Amino acid sequence: MSHPHPELEEPPALPKGGVRVVPLGGLGEVGRNMTVVEYDGRLLVVDCGVLFPEDHPGVDLILPDFDYIADRLDDIEAIVLTHGHEDHIGAVPYLLRLKPDIPLVGSTLTLALIEAKLKEHRIKPYTLAVKEGGNEKLGAFDCDFIAVNHSIPDALAVFVKTGGGNLLITGDFKMDQLPLDGRITDLRAFAKAGEEGVDLFLTDSTNAEVPGFTTPERNIAPAIERVFQQAERRIIVACFSSHVHRVQQVLDAAAAHGRKVAFVGRSMLRNMGIAAELGYLHVPDRVLVDLKKIDKFADNQIVLVSTGSQGEPMAALSRMAAGDHNTIEIGPGDTVLMASSLIPGNENAVYRVINGLMRRGASVIHKGNALVHVSGHASAGELLYCYNIVRPRNVMPIHGEWRHLVANGDLAVATGVPAERVLLAEDGVVVDLVDGRARIVGAVPCGYVYVDGSLVGTTDETMLKDRRILRDEGFVTIIVVRDADTGKIVSGPEIQTRGFAEDDEVFDKVRPKLEAALEEAREKGISDTYQLQQVIRRAVGGFVGGKLRRRPMIIPIVIDA
Amino acid sequence: MSHPHPELEEPPALPKGGVRVVPLGGLGEVGRNMTVVEYDGRLLVVDCGVLFPEDHPGVDLILPDFDYIADRLDDIEAIVLTHGHEDHIGAVPYLLRLKPDIPLVGSTLTLALIEAKLKEHRIKPYTLAVKEGGNEKLGAFDCDFIAVNHSIPDALAVFVKTGGGNLLITGDFKMDQLPLDGRITDLRAFAKAGEEGVDLFLTDSTNAEVPGFTTPERNIAPAIERVFQQAERRIIVACFSSHVHRVQQVLDAAAAHGRKVAFVGRSMLRNMGIAAELGYLHVPDRVLVDLKKIDKFADNQIVLVSTGSQGEPMAALSRMAAGDHNTIEIGPGDTVLMASSLIPGNENAVYRVINGLMRRGASVIHKGNALVHVSGHASAGELLYCYNIVRPRNVMPIHGEWRHLVANGDLAVATGVPAERVLLAEDGVVVDLVDGRARIVGAVPCGYVYVDGSLVGTTDETMLKDRRILRDEGFVTIIVVRDADTGKIVSGPEIQTRGFAEDDEVFDKVRPKLEAALEEAREKGISDTYQLQQVIRRAVGGFVGGKLRRRPMIIPIVIDA
Repeated sequence: MSHPHPELEEPPALPKGGVRVVPLGGLGEVGRNMTVVEYDGRLLVVDCGVLFPEDHPGVDLILPDFDYIADRLDDIEAIVLTHGHEDHIGAVPYLLRLKPDIPLVGSTLTLALIEAKLKEHRIKPYTLAVKEGGNEKLGAFDCDFIAVNHSIPDALAVFVKTGGGNLLITGDFKMDQLPLDGRITDLRAFAKAGEEGVDLFLTDSTNAEVPGFTTPERNIAPAIERVFQQAERRIIVACFSSHVHRVQQVLDAAAAHGRKVAFVGRSMLRNMGIAAELGYLHVPDRVLVDLKKIDKFADNQIVLVSTGSQGEPMAALSRMAAGDHNTIEIGPGDTVLMASSLIPGNENAVYRVINGLMRRGASVIHKGNALVHVSGHASAGELLYCYNIVRPRNVMPIHGEWRHLVANGDLAVATGVPAERVLLAEDGVVVDLVDGRARIVGAVPCGYVYVDGSLVGTTDETMLKDRRILRDEGFVTIIVVRDADTGKIVSGPEIQTRGFAEDDEVFDKVRPKLEAALEEAREKGISDTYQLQQVIRRAVGGFVGGKLRRRPMIIPIVIDA
Repeated sequence: MSHPHPELEEPPALPKGGVRVVPLGGLGEVGRNMTVVEYDGRLLVVDCGVLFPEDHPGVDLILPDFDYIADRLDDIEAIVLTHGHEDHIGAVPYLLRLKPDIPLVGSTLTLALIEAKLKEHRIKPYTLAVKEGGNEKLGAFDCDFIAVNHSIPDALAVFVKTGGGNLLITGDFKMDQLPLDGRITDLRAFAKAGEEGVDLFLTDSTNAEVPGFTTPERNIAPAIERVFQQAERRIIVACFSSHVHRVQQVLDAAAAHGRKVAFVGRSMLRNMGIAAELGYLHVPDRVLVDLKKIDKFADNQIVLVSTGSQGEPMAALSRMAAGDHNTIEIGPGDTVLMASSLIPGNENAVYRVINGLMRRGASVIHKGNALVHVSGHASAGELLYCYNIVRPRNVMPIHGEWRHLVANGDLAVATGVPAERVLLAEDGVVVDLVDGRARIVGAVPCGYVYVDGSLVGTTDETMLKDRRILRDEGFVTIIVVRDADTGKIVSGPEIQTRGFAEDDEVFDKVRPKLEAALEEAREKGISDTYQLQQVIRRAVGGFVGGKLRRRPMIIPIVIDA
């Protein structure tokens, strides 16, 4: 398989009649999915999502790097959104800040979700709603939209036809053959695209490492049913606030067992409101109640559907577990169903929530002890079907870490795609499709863009590096004030420290060493500020490094007063 | 089941003839296992392990809180060590620092491992080696030692008989019925203890949530065999440096396939050296080679057995993945087998290593795509066997988070143990066994003790809280120098910042606000240092909080020069 060469250079100009594909996010990580397709000088953007930070202290969100398209915004025909998950739509507000009139193309639910989000950013977008089976000519890009099944309704794959070749882009999908809403991934449309000729197949790699087939959504029903049969008091279900099907299952079970359902958490209320209004969520009569009104019902008549399934500290469930939720107090007899996956990195937070809930006497049903969640992505077995049905000329795995992309590429090769036509790219790697053959031709700058409070793009790696040092080691500030004229030290050394040996004891030991060093510096006639800072840094650093085996950030400050 | 009451108080004096059990670690967390048994004024300590930090920035290790026994060290008959894992022996050096002559009792391998560790701390311990089937009278504690099967050889359960009742303490164990070394958990001895009467059964909760039975160790063989059959170049196996059985499997496979094995990583070399010397690891002839000498062999004749299966950044494997290991360079054709579990919280680090290895062209076999590891702990099905064989009068689940303890307690109840005789304790909770009935009678102070560089116990929650703030938000130091006599500001405000808006731009905006505030303070005649600090804190905090929606640590420093 063609790996991205470490020494990739600026790509050459795109040959006339060629199609260029540049992933600006989602290849090499799970999240911030964004792919730019270029043909005849025009651009089509597919998805524009966020990545949730991992070891990026203080960072709220990570965006795709728009740098590559920043000065070509006028060339963008449209942004096609495959579905409404954050990692596919979350960065749209930040792109539209640069140019608010770029049209958004997607299914009704997807557009409703992004419009709600844009409202918070005070942006009113131009939108074009499309349906499976529909076709739209977006400038030079002739797009067929194809139904795919995923863990959110109304997801679409897009078949992009250009004069330079045809691209089939799946977005996130799986192939549940008996989905709850009956809306299957349209393999007949995949087959038809294959007949027309798929020159480049960009397909979801998330579960490519997982052997076999993803468990059908309805196989969770028994676990839910058991909860409703056995729960003595309240039932609290935590799941992703966009998982309409999961919530539908809960609503139906509640209706069957004569329980009332209240939504908890801002995003849950907002998304389910939208889903219900648009008819994606079917709310049985008199099942839904307002959280404020649940006191009117007995505990064993109540179901709460809440956010916080990933242990997010601010979410409703975490606050219940910590015992500081303003209205809901967890107690013995309550049953909590954590009906979601466990995103890597969230384990400790989630187990903290589970322990907290159980400590309060609740019984907790979760991934670890019951079948309460299935993935929204196609496993290896399903992907093999796709390759055999589509028979693509070239393949470019998308959506995943390197290990996922490699696993997906291996599946393509196993079905007969020549290894050299499977392109393992990463963010910023440029793939050109010319005369039916796709090749990696270079790379463009493509970094992480951090949203940090209201600061976008100003937080950089240096700052994160500093935060990691501060996190692990804390800091020591040493201040000396010199007489501006004589250069004599008139005050200090004043030592301030946080996150490191905050008892003065330590510095009773270092202070004399420091004073001696300063005295020596004076005798040597060292007056240069930087040199004096070095003297201080060495004196303090040597002591804490040697004696305490610690490396706090040391900040010497010399002030001339 | 008897839960620990939040309002637990100082326990009353232990009634004459009663037995007191106080867990100082391991109940409420996975790690730092330590249980103190008291009878007739004397103490027996069972295990003394460390906990590895989770969200404790900068902390190297977490120890049990020795406070409860600190002034009773002379009452300790011995420390019984059930097996050689860090979470059961790792804190022994810190306890022996307080009193080096407390005897250590354990199996030959367990003692060898702790002695090697103590050597690094320059402590020569008093040891008493025991065997399964053996008995030792440790003062008032008459101890039978029972073979148990675990993911390290030579693990023991201990049956502690006293005038006040008998305790069966399993330590970590599982019930593999066809273990690689043939050493099974001795259920006949469990049955015999049951016949004599087990008044309190303290049993491993780690896998109590997991339904059914733990997969036998030998079921991993096919995955290992496949690797040896298919690997084109080097094979690198990463596993826990104490997992003698896993390494034995690799050595045998290497011998069968004519490959040489080199150990990589300090702890791997040390532990396998000990295991081989004592006859727990059987090294086939001419299979082992020194890492320095592997260049003499072809790549397809080499197996490296390395540390770093948890993605520890400093471990050999992580450095190979990052491409900065001094001798081993990973390349296409290399096969890496990660033959270990994935400890919650390590996911991101481990996947980073896997992606790094694959990016260099290696194929990686891991938990996610093959059966390469089985747990070392008994699952629910095995624990049910134990309860039915032992028929304990009282049960106290040990080794686990709250969710594990609860699950284990439920199993005891399911086998007929009265719920009120299942004691869900946590660290520091005091359980008294009096006249055959165990009860929670109170709690003793029991905190986390942090090892932080060479500092033990000085790092506290305040400091960790500061580190978390610094991690997420960074800090701003504002220094003003006043004339000691006139109180007039002669220098500053000097602004220093790290991990937060390190571009001065931000502070060009805040500086005038700050200066205005200081001027206003001067006019109001505010001279008190603390008040002035508050003025500075408000001026800066208000700006960054409001405008930037950030909460950096703000440190105002007023110096009188």
